[in-house]
Amino acid sequence: MHTRLRDGAEFDLVRRFLDVWGDDAAGIGDDAAVLPAVKNARLVATIDSSVENVHFRRDWLTPAEIGYRAAAAALSDLAAMAASPLGILTAIVLPETWLADADQIANGIAEAASGCDAKVLGGDLSGGGELAITISALGAAQRPLLRSGARIGDFIYVTGRLGGPAAAVRAFRSGASPQGKHRGRFAHPIPRLREAIWLAQSGISAGIDISDGLVADLEHVAAASDVSISVDLEHVPAIDGVSQLDAAGSGEEYELAVTSGSELDTKEFERRFGIELTRIGMVEKGAARVTLLDRGTRVASPSGYLHFSK
Amino acid sequence: MHTRLRDGAEFDLVRRFLDVWGDDAAGIGDDAAVLPAVKNARLVATIDSSVENVHFRRDWLTPAEIGYRAAAAALSDLAAMAASPLGILTAIVLPETWLADADQIANGIAEAASGCDAKVLGGDLSGGGELAITISALGAAQRPLLRSGARIGDFIYVTGRLGGPAAAVRAFRSGASPQGKHRGRFAHPIPRLREAIWLAQSGISAGIDISDGLVADLEHVAAASDVSISVDLEHVPAIDGVSQLDAAGSGEEYELAVTSGSELDTKEFERRFGIELTRIGMVEKGAARVTLLDRGTRVASPSGYLHFSK
Repeated sequence: MHTRLRDGAEFDLVRRFLDVWGDDAAGIGDDAAVLPAVKNARLVATIDSSVENVHFRRDWLTPAEIGYRAAAAALSDLAAMAASPLGILTAIVLPETWLADADQIANGIAEAASGCDAKVLGGDLSGGGELAITISALGAAQRPLLRSGARIGDFIYVTGRLGGPAAAVRAFRSGASPQGKHRGRFAHPIPRLREAIWLAQSGISAGIDISDGLVADLEHVAAASDVSISVDLEHVPAIDGVSQLDAAGSGEEYELAVTSGSELDTKEFERRFGIELTRIGMVEKGAARVTLLDRGTRVASPSGYLHFSK
Repeated sequence: MHTRLRDGAEFDLVRRFLDVWGDDAAGIGDDAAVLPAVKNARLVATIDSSVENVHFRRDWLTPAEIGYRAAAAALSDLAAMAASPLGILTAIVLPETWLADADQIANGIAEAASGCDAKVLGGDLSGGGELAITISALGAAQRPLLRSGARIGDFIYVTGRLGGPAAAVRAFRSGASPQGKHRGRFAHPIPRLREAIWLAQSGISAGIDISDGLVADLEHVAAASDVSISVDLEHVPAIDGVSQLDAAGSGEEYELAVTSGSELDTKEFERRFGIELTRIGMVEKGAARVTLLDRGTRVASPSGYLHFSK
């Protein structure tokens, strides 16, 4: 408990959240959170919503996983900027039918935050008809990584192995149980914050986290940098049991795609972080778009990841 | 337009928002917003959701008013901390039935932001079944105003005249049209940011913005400061056509209630800001609660403001 609160049912629920968060929460109880001054760094801020039946379905995930995923998605945006997290603010629209799951949702949020050394700085709790968890993540970066920094001649790299979330959603939708590895990548994505800072220190020129899908997100980089990007499908790192084309279209991965003017030390990256860093393509002159090549022949890009209910 | 975006329907909608926001938006287009370093000040951050049928009803307000109110409510939390706004992040869950109103919602958000010299720094757009607008407001304060600073012997002051929002909601609920003045206070509350900074410079000890109702919010101050607060009902400034008891219970006012060890220059305040500053009570020794006195006799407190659907 970090504050004295007034009596009343709403505050009882806030107290329950604070009890669950414990030392993962800081400074809650005023109208706003107060953070220390950020010295010699830019402040980086993002906001992201997870909505029932848009971003997740109740029968697919546990309440803790739903909370975790919502916070991890926002924290991943900080990784995309090579920022170090300061903390998160949480706004939860909680229907009565979810009331009994509130503690577990809070647990999941706390797990994502503490996994990234971020505090839960404050929040807002509303009634409503559908569960919606909105997380604002605040971070600090000396040189924030932008989408607009890719230059002709740069290499394209991606972290980890892609395709798990798409395979899990496909299985869920067909009424099957996804493979454990695929489900894990969907239910428990890991914001690549330490990896992003290491990559930024290695001099990468642009970066993005993969939320819409590798090709779709590289299209954001191509548009922002006004460059053409070619991706070699045969180099796209796919998780076991998923084709490289499906991997290139899989969204909500929260892996990083980056551009670099010099070759990156992929072995050192793997040694440090226990996941792969794979070179998958080049930045080229031409119209601002992504071309997917299968052994030199152009293939149709996978459509950008569509959230399953769209 | 502040960025180059990929083609696609979702991005068309984002473009519409950016067109509406124009110069009120800054730095949108990356995974997160980048703010300048805040020097010699603490960072203050808050988050607040406005949910259809909880915080507003579609037939009561225009889409622009709904957007305005959502942003004003979050910005008012910065006023409660005596912080100067840096900007806001917006997360909108937009059902298809609201798609045609999206520009007007964006207009309302921009109006609230620009009225407080805040930029729209970024956002997130989701599908969903009910409109929910979540705003994270970021600000800077040299000495953030807390709820916990009230001391025995302090005076209690409140800005403006209370009761408009409660009267408007009462009229709406009974199927009547609220009086223009009451409706205006409900539809278009004004975050008291400049007023808060003036009050902080005048040496006030604690502050809060009135979202739950004067008495209910002063109970937060009493609890956080561990003091007793007495409020003289006959001094509570009520808007025309509203009783002082109803004024003391009216929520979503976004006026400020503050405590001060010395008398404040209420005439100077009124001259500067065109609204009243009224002394309404005292901080006293005793149990952490608020006592409402009607010419010296204790009266039952109005219940804390209940959002109309609860």
